[in-house]
Amino acid sequence: MPLRTSPPPLVITDALLVTQDAERRIVRGDLRIEDGRFTHVGPRAPREGAEQVDGRHFAAVPGFINTHGHVAMAPLRGIADDRDLGGFLGILFKVDADRTEADVGAGARAGIAEMLLGGTTSFLDMYYFQDATARAAVELGARGFLGWAVLDADKTTQKGDPVDNAAAFIRRWRDSPLIQPLPAPQGVYVCGEETWRRTRELADREGTPITYHLSETLREVHDHEAAYGKRPVVWLDEIGFLGAGQIAAHGVWLTRREIEILAGRKVAIAHCASSNAKLATGGICPVSELRRAGVVVGIGTDSVASNNSLSMLREMHVAGLFQKHHRWEAAALSHQELLDLATREGARALGRAADLGSLETGKIADLSLFSLDHPTLQPATPEAIVSHLVYSASEEAIDSVYVGGVPVVRHRKLEGADWAAIRSQAAEAAVTLWSRRPAGA
Amino acid sequence: MPLRTSPPPLVITDALLVTQDAERRIVRGDLRIEDGRFTHVGPRAPREGAEQVDGRHFAAVPGFINTHGHVAMAPLRGIADDRDLGGFLGILFKVDADRTEADVGAGARAGIAEMLLGGTTSFLDMYYFQDATARAAVELGARGFLGWAVLDADKTTQKGDPVDNAAAFIRRWRDSPLIQPLPAPQGVYVCGEETWRRTRELADREGTPITYHLSETLREVHDHEAAYGKRPVVWLDEIGFLGAGQIAAHGVWLTRREIEILAGRKVAIAHCASSNAKLATGGICPVSELRRAGVVVGIGTDSVASNNSLSMLREMHVAGLFQKHHRWEAAALSHQELLDLATREGARALGRAADLGSLETGKIADLSLFSLDHPTLQPATPEAIVSHLVYSASEEAIDSVYVGGVPVVRHRKLEGADWAAIRSQAAEAAVTLWSRRPAGA
Repeated sequence: MPLRTSPPPLVITDALLVTQDAERRIVRGDLRIEDGRFTHVGPRAPREGAEQVDGRHFAAVPGFINTHGHVAMAPLRGIADDRDLGGFLGILFKVDADRTEADVGAGARAGIAEMLLGGTTSFLDMYYFQDATARAAVELGARGFLGWAVLDADKTTQKGDPVDNAAAFIRRWRDSPLIQPLPAPQGVYVCGEETWRRTRELADREGTPITYHLSETLREVHDHEAAYGKRPVVWLDEIGFLGAGQIAAHGVWLTRREIEILAGRKVAIAHCASSNAKLATGGICPVSELRRAGVVVGIGTDSVASNNSLSMLREMHVAGLFQKHHRWEAAALSHQELLDLATREGARALGRAADLGSLETGKIADLSLFSLDHPTLQPATPEAIVSHLVYSASEEAIDSVYVGGVPVVRHRKLEGADWAAIRSQAAEAAVTLWSRRPAGA
Repeated sequence: MPLRTSPPPLVITDALLVTQDAERRIVRGDLRIEDGRFTHVGPRAPREGAEQVDGRHFAAVPGFINTHGHVAMAPLRGIADDRDLGGFLGILFKVDADRTEADVGAGARAGIAEMLLGGTTSFLDMYYFQDATARAAVELGARGFLGWAVLDADKTTQKGDPVDNAAAFIRRWRDSPLIQPLPAPQGVYVCGEETWRRTRELADREGTPITYHLSETLREVHDHEAAYGKRPVVWLDEIGFLGAGQIAAHGVWLTRREIEILAGRKVAIAHCASSNAKLATGGICPVSELRRAGVVVGIGTDSVASNNSLSMLREMHVAGLFQKHHRWEAAALSHQELLDLATREGARALGRAADLGSLETGKIADLSLFSLDHPTLQPATPEAIVSHLVYSASEEAIDSVYVGGVPVVRHRKLEGADWAAIRSQAAEAAVTLWSRRPAGA
């Protein structure tokens, strides 16, 4: 499926630019986009040969970067509510085990559509049958960092060896401009030393990031200590796994020593506040300590089965509330820091700080236009705009979304995709998947 | 300003009715509305003489009841972020002190518009110049339970005696169908025994509810203990203040004994999870203990200065997350309970269970129509709909809102009100108010 390629140059004129650059400048100005990148950010851009979009009523904001999720689970929203992780997985494993590539694709299209409509332009994902998710991302124009789930061969329903499957997936997609394929070990509870080592070798060989679940629940930490005599981070470091280019999801139950190890090895954390709270994991990711130690932290929604929203707007709000509450410190995770986590820090976590996460000349043009007239952005002043984006903006305020300079949402509608068809295919998949719930669930 | 009165009978046909009745029935069926009340809820209603709305693509949901806020503060969103209650009030008191009735009205219109667009049909409010808020509510068609703020005369910038002002306000509005005027003591830190006693006498005489702030911060509790030797609830009970028809906002720092007293006196609690967390009050309202003891609990957003959203959809989600997290109990505040808090329990808190809070024959027709086609409501099945309303629905899914059978929002637009004018008047008020911020804030 060829994506609309090489659109003409585009100038968005006179918008409120929430640049998220190093100085966090917020200025009225223009954005000129050519070949998918910003060629001008600031006062009056050259208009020659460019399509123009009147930006006067809009704030231009970097596209959100969702650093953890399982997007193809879209049809499973609400299937296992109000249960802890054990009860949750008891249902999910049954429902998830026998998915087809077709229903993974249907779920991925619905989830990606929801994310794009919510201003998320890049997402880091962990699942299987990721070719279907990759095709959905390309079709809808989203930037997918797609992790192929890796488990020990005796713990998965995948056909063949999961590390080999991940390697083959990477080879199939490594040259696609919108897709970054990568391996994704599920966690220490289903991956033994050999699996971690082979995954690291694969990523080193192919030059890809790695993502994995880490210390989400206290039980997982205790079980690992009981089996190996060491906490997960210490153990993963001792077997030589940890290294730069890794994004560990959750990172809730971490000691100071583990934080130091993560910082030293340049491992990033994807913070998933809503999912952790909804599953009653009891802990709070130590975001301030991680950042102070130099660990890059991004924000992740996790899947709709445990969140149950894919909204990065909601997730910034929730992440801020939990940090402030937990520390009795209202200044913890300020609104500026929260917007950073959802944009430039997410880009750093993915190793793409040079390319993504802010509106700056030379970077890829992934951005949203928020309507400054929307009720949830009032009063729409430059000094309050970041607060509003983080604490009050509704998805409805997002008029348009661009990925690589290509419009993927315009006036709240997907561009070049049929939401009604996506919805009905996902609804069909839901019927099949929900019928597999264990009795009594 | 005469509200559109006596609309013709209306039948909403074949909608998914989330009745919130005693059995929490969710059924496909019709709603017939005459003279502002449901005359039929369920399979095929008589259509005679009625306007019809095709409900096939909608879920009909009782209007949300926001049990605590200060709606006229709409222009102050973002003015005092990332500060604890002390720092917050330091700014707010300066900005709030010299408001005019005109700018209160401008703020109230913007805030009420935001609430209606978010499916909130009733709201309990505490502020001064409430005539302006009452006029705004009537103009926009919202149901306002409007508390006139009462403080000791030496602690307020109000002209005249606050209890007398409240009494006069009640007399002016007690016969208005959409407005329930009431007195609203601000809290034990600005109200002495005499003020509480006079407020209670006023409410008894006029037959109104009372609302007040209660035990929001640990400091407020400690200061009261230091001054009076008793915790606030114990003291308020001993001076004879507590009684049925009272809605206390926050109720975070409560002992078991205080919970028993509140239950015995039939005082309701308005739970404001986002505001408490954002101000880093450190505590969590003991919702489960309160409900187990028989205390009615509703949900409140508090104002945009401390939330910063007026979304009851967000607030249900956040309230659920904090209870689950805090108790390490994923089943705490289930999605059904959360929707109850936002609808029928809110009605009970306001003493209006016979009239409001569910879709039942004889009750007032306050409801929203949620589009079942919206991305955040997928998969849109009857068994998952409550979960979606609570954990994922976006305001954008709310197509239409009715108050007393009168459409106040249709296809995401205010009915009979001009949002652009409301927004620009609130923006003007914001300029003046923000200029009063203390230096360095």
